[in-house]
Amino acid sequence: MKIALDALGGDFGAKPNVLGALKAAKELKLEVILVGNEAVLREELKTLGYADLPKNISIVHAPQTIDMGAEPAKECRSKKNASIVVCANLVRRGQADAFVSAGHSGAAMVAALFGMGRIKGVQRPAIATPMPTYKGVSLLLDGGANADCKPIHLLQFAVMGSAYMQKVFDIPAPSVGILSIGEEETKGNFLVKHTIPHMREIGVNFKGTVEGRDVNTGDTDVIVCDGFVGNIVLKMAEGLAKTMIQMIKREIKKRPLAVLGALLAKGAFKAVKNHTNPDCYGGAPLVGVNGVAIISHGKSNDFAIFNAIKTAARLVEKDFIGDIAAKMAALKPTFEAIEKEIHQEEA
Amino acid sequence: MKIALDALGGDFGAKPNVLGALKAAKELKLEVILVGNEAVLREELKTLGYADLPKNISIVHAPQTIDMGAEPAKECRSKKNASIVVCANLVRRGQADAFVSAGHSGAAMVAALFGMGRIKGVQRPAIATPMPTYKGVSLLLDGGANADCKPIHLLQFAVMGSAYMQKVFDIPAPSVGILSIGEEETKGNFLVKHTIPHMREIGVNFKGTVEGRDVNTGDTDVIVCDGFVGNIVLKMAEGLAKTMIQMIKREIKKRPLAVLGALLAKGAFKAVKNHTNPDCYGGAPLVGVNGVAIISHGKSNDFAIFNAIKTAARLVEKDFIGDIAAKMAALKPTFEAIEKEIHQEEA
Repeated sequence: MKIALDALGGDFGAKPNVLGALKAAKELKLEVILVGNEAVLREELKTLGYADLPKNISIVHAPQTIDMGAEPAKECRSKKNASIVVCANLVRRGQADAFVSAGHSGAAMVAALFGMGRIKGVQRPAIATPMPTYKGVSLLLDGGANADCKPIHLLQFAVMGSAYMQKVFDIPAPSVGILSIGEEETKGNFLVKHTIPHMREIGVNFKGTVEGRDVNTGDTDVIVCDGFVGNIVLKMAEGLAKTMIQMIKREIKKRPLAVLGALLAKGAFKAVKNHTNPDCYGGAPLVGVNGVAIISHGKSNDFAIFNAIKTAARLVEKDFIGDIAAKMAALKPTFEAIEKEIHQEEA
Repeated sequence: MKIALDALGGDFGAKPNVLGALKAAKELKLEVILVGNEAVLREELKTLGYADLPKNISIVHAPQTIDMGAEPAKECRSKKNASIVVCANLVRRGQADAFVSAGHSGAAMVAALFGMGRIKGVQRPAIATPMPTYKGVSLLLDGGANADCKPIHLLQFAVMGSAYMQKVFDIPAPSVGILSIGEEETKGNFLVKHTIPHMREIGVNFKGTVEGRDVNTGDTDVIVCDGFVGNIVLKMAEGLAKTMIQMIKREIKKRPLAVLGALLAKGAFKAVKNHTNPDCYGGAPLVGVNGVAIISHGKSNDFAIFNAIKTAARLVEKDFIGDIAAKMAALKPTFEAIEKEIHQEEA
């Protein structure tokens, strides 16, 4: 198996990518293709003691870089030698089985769409983000690829998210919830109210609505929402956790006894930090594109990159793409009937 | 000044309401009208040592109760003697200057709308919720009254939220942000992208977008969003803070030294808890209705009720309603031009 890695992606340059790739090549018995500026990558490998490439690591030279401030679609169209574009094209041509990137997630989505296309029947691919919870992990999608969604998109997210939790976390019938503002299925916004009635028609284990206060309990395996709400929820979870830690630290610093106490309780805090560390959860798959593509967050360390590669390999092994394609084909008449019904309601 | 209190509202019945009212009547030199079942209220007052009513406390008998599971509009229409309906009618008839309720927020909004109407020019009243942050407090609106919004609604929320932060927190030019999914003003969903261009035309101190990760930093005084996103954000902040504390406790319990440490650091944790205690921030005003109306959360204690009454009194004193009415009148041509422009864009 070959995994293409966007080897200069992320905030920390080559190092965490190369280290993660080396570890994956060694432990997972797969090949990693480092995609990026060859000179920079060779230099990094040399610094790490690999003047000669290990036999299951190769390099594909891709000297261009995506301008983060620019429009991803324009960037991906005009820069054929940008590492992320090259990664997607390697997968399309069958020269890699999957790609992993810690670079700009918008660019990764565009590159995957342009290079690999969508799985037949999928209207909108989504970013599916594993989110740390009290009990373990929940998958939230869409994490930000589609700011405005229609009911059919959310229904497809539910199907794809369930498939992911089955394949990666071995949950036989993942529970599915829709993010909303009340337990009653009559509450919510237009999108949610028009999605809920069809959730029980698509073969997922639908459990009803999930309110904001229950997002992080871990009671629901798959939480669907539009990409606007999803992105706010994900970033807020990150931000609020950080703010709380800062508040606790601020108050501890004011009290000498509390400083001592915090030292004694250090192990407990570290355990919480580890438990909520997104690096453990193997990155966020772009679900619905026609090939395995995993994005890892910009601050990924080598451990996060290793886990993302591991997840990518697992999805390839388990034929995640084939599974979604089969589900989409089987659900085609159902989705068509739902769209027709919603279209009539709106008219 | 007279404040009507929905005296059986909230999860804990009469006690916190009556205690909060007694404190307010004593310390704030105002009259509190307890609205609810008279027998129950007299019993509670008797238990608390007030067999005779203090002279600035009165009771208005309102024996009906709102069924939380039912449609608020139906409930408020059919139950003229429900305490929340009576509260709103007291304000309309000038027999009270404001009302406070810890009951069902949807019912409070409906009762206020039916009883008091909207301020002229306001299209959609909103729930404005003070949210604890690292630096202090930010006002988020809409907190859940309007699940689907149009740009004009968000623009009006910005004006009303700014007026609130001026009046209650003495901030001369409150900073205003719009909740979105990127710093770039070209990102966001349809609603946000169509609202942003007009934010600088309405006389508020607009600072741009606020991302999920910055919701709780306190860098922005007023954060506007639709009521669907707002409600999710507010409930998530509550839920996530709770989840984090549970996680920390779980890990501390596993480690004897950490248990000792937590004891030593107790004061710091308590300070964080106090700082993030919503009871301190005086409840959430229903902005845009034609009269001062404050809702307090269901788990309000007497301190929360006291603070909500205090805020209500302050808004009356500072002529909050007159201020919004004047701003709406002055902005009438601007809002009309914006609506026309958006209407043309959509057509």
